[in-house]
Amino acid sequence: MAPAATISQPTLTLAGARTTLAAAEQHALEIGVPMNIAIMDSHTHLLAFTRMDGAKITSINIALDKAFTAAGHRVPTSAYKENVWPGGMAFGIGNTNGGRFCTIGGGVPIIDDDGRILGAVGCSTGTPAEDEEVANAGRDAVLGLIREEKENEKWTEVMEALEKEREREWKRVRKEITPPADPPVEEMMQ
Amino acid sequence: MAPAATISQPTLTLAGARTTLAAAEQHALEIGVPMNIAIMDSHTHLLAFTRMDGAKITSINIALDKAFTAAGHRVPTSAYKENVWPGGMAFGIGNTNGGRFCTIGGGVPIIDDDGRILGAVGCSTGTPAEDEEVANAGRDAVLGLIREEKENEKWTEVMEALEKEREREWKRVRKEITPPADPPVEEMMQ
Amino acid sequence: MAPAATISQPTLTLAGARTTLAAAEQHALEIGVPMNIAIMDSHTHLLAFTRMDGAKITSINIALDKAFTAAGHRVPTSAYKENVWPGGMAFGIGNTNGGRFCTIGGGVPIIDDDGRILGAVGCSTGTPAEDEEVANAGRDAVLGLIREEKENEKWTEVMEALEKEREREWKRVRKEITPPADPPVEEMMQ
Amino acid sequence: MAPAATISQPTLTLAGARTTLAAAEQHALEIGVPMNIAIMDSHTHLLAFTRMDGAKITSINIALDKAFTAAGHRVPTSAYKENVWPGGMAFGIGNTNGGRFCTIGGGVPIIDDDGRILGAVGCSTGTPAEDEEVANAGRDAVLGLIREEKENEKWTEVMEALEKEREREWKRVRKEITPPADPPVEEMMQ
Repeated sequence: MAPAATISQPTLTLAGARTTLAAAEQHALEIGVPMNIAIMDSHTHLLAFTRMDGAKITSINIALDKAFTAAGHRVPTSAYKENVWPGGMAFGIGNTNGGRFCTIGGGVPIIDDDGRILGAVGCSTGTPAEDEEVANAGRDAVLGLIREEKENEKWTEVMEALEKEREREWKRVRKEITPPADPPVEEMMQ
Repeated sequence: MAPAATISQPTLTLAGARTTLAAAEQHALEIGVPMNIAIMDSHTHLLAFTRMDGAKITSINIALDKAFTAAGHRVPTSAYKENVWPGGMAFGIGNTNGGRFCTIGGGVPIIDDDGRILGAVGCSTGTPAEDEEVANAGRDAVLGLIREEKENEKWTEVMEALEKEREREWKRVRKEITPPADPPVEEMMQ
Repeated sequence: MAPAATISQPTLTLAGARTTLAAAEQHALEIGVPMNIAIMDSHTHLLAFTRMDGAKITSINIALDKAFTAAGHRVPTSAYKENVWPGGMAFGIGNTNGGRFCTIGGGVPIIDDDGRILGAVGCSTGTPAEDEEVANAGRDAVLGLIREEKENEKWTEVMEALEKEREREWKRVRKEITPPADPPVEEMMQ
Repeated sequence: MAPAATISQPTLTLAGARTTLAAAEQHALEIGVPMNIAIMDSHTHLLAFTRMDGAKITSINIALDKAFTAAGHRVPTSAYKENVWPGGMAFGIGNTNGGRFCTIGGGVPIIDDDGRILGAVGCSTGTPAEDEEVANAGRDAVLGLIREEKENEKWTEVMEALEKEREREWKRVRKEITPPADPPVEEMMQ
């Protein structure tokens, strides 16, 4: 069979982005580091952004680039650590995409349990480790929500199937216990 | 007297940006046009951003540029309408600032009652008129909040002044009605 | 209590920038290295710039980028030295912000005694050590001026308070020593 | 004769740029419009810049681009008015030079009495007419200074020539009135 001409791809919605953003922000508050937090969809386009009071101005762009890179390359930006050193196989990759390819930790992709990319979070103002920690908190929150929604969806499907089964059963039972209908009046008049 | 080496300037906080964003989004929902909404501070730096589901991807950048332009030039981007036509006095201004200077309606500055720039909202996906309407809704909401906060601040000051006055009065009264203290025990023993 | 919608932030004025510029230039003359000197406000926007005769043309941009980076990230650009080497935690950060993030010594933030960012100086043409030395001279001069202004402000407040106190005292004394006013002429005529 | 391999070209120094800047700033104060003022040398490179308190942030770049354009194309940026309209012979020129070619009034070249380009001033924040007026004030001041210096130079040359002439004359006179020297002692001893 030839491949289909179209495909449907999952991506975060604004609702998903907000869950991510809220959890990341909450975590940043907990560790006491105000952050720039950017959420991109699975196509590297910005969905939501927050600059917490006190976050660095020159980190706005870094947060955006981290999310961009993680959404597009589907790995955490921290993964590049050794690969981008001189001699590493990705040395120089930071110059690509107009310099937007960011190889500093703090960008993490959001990948569902089926391995599909949904989007990415990028954080910046703290150390790369802090930035990544905050981004992970955002990612975990939205993946938790997605699993819950999936669970709910399964339950809904099961419940709907049960409901249908029960209805079918009822129809059958009703049929069995229903006495034969009286013959139509016209017949009785004959 | 020589001019001072520093000055203090107001700007939106994230809280102010959120009020703006929420009101703009609400208005976009009411008119049924999903929008990209960008909020910048008084220094043209991004504070918060939301892409509503269904908003155009190529309008992300336009919303950002509208907010940038309104924050920096302190007028609605719609003000440029005729000035940037051939023969208009600002014809060509759209090429400046690396092409980020946007002369399409939908960017509005947030200016307080003392005429000070606080930030800007930029909206994009609808017609320029719709975009500006949504941006205005955001601006009006935050200006309303700021007026309320100012009013509260005044009340707090008045209440604190009254409280101090009352305390002074009490001290005076207490002094008047207090009988002279007994001499210290040591003195009585002598 | 909810966070306020606006905040007031300090920044250098042109007067402050000029003091910085003059001191940096003076120091550059003393060490015999003509410099490009850029002064930015606390929001990474250019306030003042000087290219001394003989300074390198391709260092104009470097001075600007150093000031930009120091103002936005609030640390001297020399702080990145080892962090941006291969293996360093900020390796690759120089590609961010459209390549404007400069990690070469010579950019220093101007931070007041309360830890607030006021702006930055960026110098370029000499060695990074010379550039930073010149930038430091500029920063020290303006911080000295700011401390002086603060001291003067306190004195002004104290002097005004004393003046008011003295006036109140005079009024009281004058009241005590003033003989009761003669009754109005009309009364005397009756 | 073959053309020479090198040439000497005049350009503004920092001293010249400062005269230009000071006069432009003074004029901006007089008309009550705070400006961004950029001075470039004859090779389109930045020499000096001032952002007056209250000038627009998004006009920093515009002032720079106006000076860049006027220095490079050697005409006031206002000269493009009709040429860049649709149908005009320079329509589209604003996109060149990476979008830095600015066709809005406010950039003026500094050209000496021999028609040689020395640099340019670019101003921005007011209307194009105000911006150009302020730029002209800067240009006129430095051209006045240059004429004065040239005049002084001529006088210096004349005075030096006179001085030399007088010296030559003195030598001649001294020779005439000097009695013949006594013959050397050795000769007398013979």
